[in-house]
Amino acid sequence: MLITNKFAVRVYYEDTDAGGIVYYANYLKFFERARTEWLRQLGIHQSFFLAQQRAFVVTNVAMENLASAKLDDLLEIHSSIAQIKRASLLFEQQLVNQQQVLLCRASIKVASINLATGKPCAIPTPILGALPSVS
Amino acid sequence: MLITNKFAVRVYYEDTDAGGIVYYANYLKFFERARTEWLRQLGIHQSFFLAQQRAFVVTNVAMENLASAKLDDLLEIHSSIAQIKRASLLFEQQLVNQQQVLLCRASIKVASINLATGKPCAIPTPILGALPSVS
Amino acid sequence: MLITNKFAVRVYYEDTDAGGIVYYANYLKFFERARTEWLRQLGIHQSFFLAQQRAFVVTNVAMENLASAKLDDLLEIHSSIAQIKRASLLFEQQLVNQQQVLLCRASIKVASINLATGKPCAIPTPILGALPSVS
Amino acid sequence: MLITNKFAVRVYYEDTDAGGIVYYANYLKFFERARTEWLRQLGIHQSFFLAQQRAFVVTNVAMENLASAKLDDLLEIHSSIAQIKRASLLFEQQLVNQQQVLLCRASIKVASINLATGKPCAIPTPILGALPSVS
Repeated sequence: MLITNKFAVRVYYEDTDAGGIVYYANYLKFFERARTEWLRQLGIHQSFFLAQQRAFVVTNVAMENLASAKLDDLLEIHSSIAQIKRASLLFEQQLVNQQQVLLCRASIKVASINLATGKPCAIPTPILGALPSVS
Repeated sequence: MLITNKFAVRVYYEDTDAGGIVYYANYLKFFERARTEWLRQLGIHQSFFLAQQRAFVVTNVAMENLASAKLDDLLEIHSSIAQIKRASLLFEQQLVNQQQVLLCRASIKVASINLATGKPCAIPTPILGALPSVS
Repeated sequence: MLITNKFAVRVYYEDTDAGGIVYYANYLKFFERARTEWLRQLGIHQSFFLAQQRAFVVTNVAMENLASAKLDDLLEIHSSIAQIKRASLLFEQQLVNQQQVLLCRASIKVASINLATGKPCAIPTPILGALPSVS
Repeated sequence: MLITNKFAVRVYYEDTDAGGIVYYANYLKFFERARTEWLRQLGIHQSFFLAQQRAFVVTNVAMENLASAKLDDLLEIHSSIAQIKRASLLFEQQLVNQQQVLLCRASIKVASINLATGKPCAIPTPILGALPSVS
């Protein structure tokens, strides 16, 4: 069973492009905000790990854009963790608008790395302990 | 007397740069989010005017950066309207962090324009009527 | 045989984040710059089609991030078109740094849409005619 | 006499917003690219100073936006250094489009800071020596 989280994002001019829609790469920023706030709810502050030169970096993205978000839209992101490994997490995330239209879905793998070396490292124990178990 | 508004912004990785601080031009995005939500509270949805090819554009910025915001900071923006003219508004905005340190202050003038022509046009009456009076 | 194109991108502070590396979603902007300039070399100016309410939008991304780009890096993007369909193009793109280290590879599908309706439409004939044939 | 530098910037979808024009805060990114490449021409690589926890940060901006840039525009930035102080530089920058229309002008003050402390520090001697003299 997947543990899920919901997070709201408002669309501003900064997010849109001349096509009159949200610039698609910005969906990835929205997804990251949702992951970050979910971790914060679990007691995990990424700045704490950054100070130790450790961070999560996105290593794999598979995203499908089905429809477009527009200025002033109030979007909702549904996130779940599909896989927890020693040094990586796999998130499944969906973006829907206020009419519950699915705009985008993405599988995003984040790896725990040591920023000084750029190498993968085990997810810090306090984070692993705080994560919901995935079964 | 100035009418003021408060708006909160969280700092994410997307907002920061390699100096370990928020990339300063992003403060202008934060200020715009605050202005937008303030207008929304007053019943003004900018997408409604965009559909009529009318928009507010920033014509003048005077900003002073005093200290840096960092990852995970929860910032607060204090906004006021210093001047209301036929085709422009002058906002005074300040950005403070969770320790109440003033990070940035800016005077931002936005003009009402017709996007089809690029020319200034009177601020739409529903917007003028909704704005707090400045005296 | 794939037709390929090369395009150079310099990394500025705006592209980086507090991890000291390029914020990964910005790779997608770099890839789009490369596709845009390739099309321009073929005589295709996207603003011409935008004026007719037609645009390419990214519908699918599969990206793998292998290593990080840093401030001041001079990156090179190698692009090829793997598939040309009536209303979509599939690009394969790679990002390498000045030491020829492969940082990122992505498959990016762009669809031709009518911005007024949001629906797919045939790629405009002048564009199809200008594209290299893929065999 | 001011020493001046020219730098070209192409406008991509990523730079625009739903108003069909370049999002104004992105002009500040364009100006920074121009300053960075000018310094690079003078032999100054900012990543070298970043590795020593030193960086230039923008402390003051006065910008005036006169007209809008659009998708595919090829812009030119004219930069000059108006003032060189012990710990800061004042740049005057202008943005013109391919029809030589002045779109934006800005005075941008950058200060040399120690990123570890956030405090101003003298501009590194190799940089001061490389800068054109302003008289």
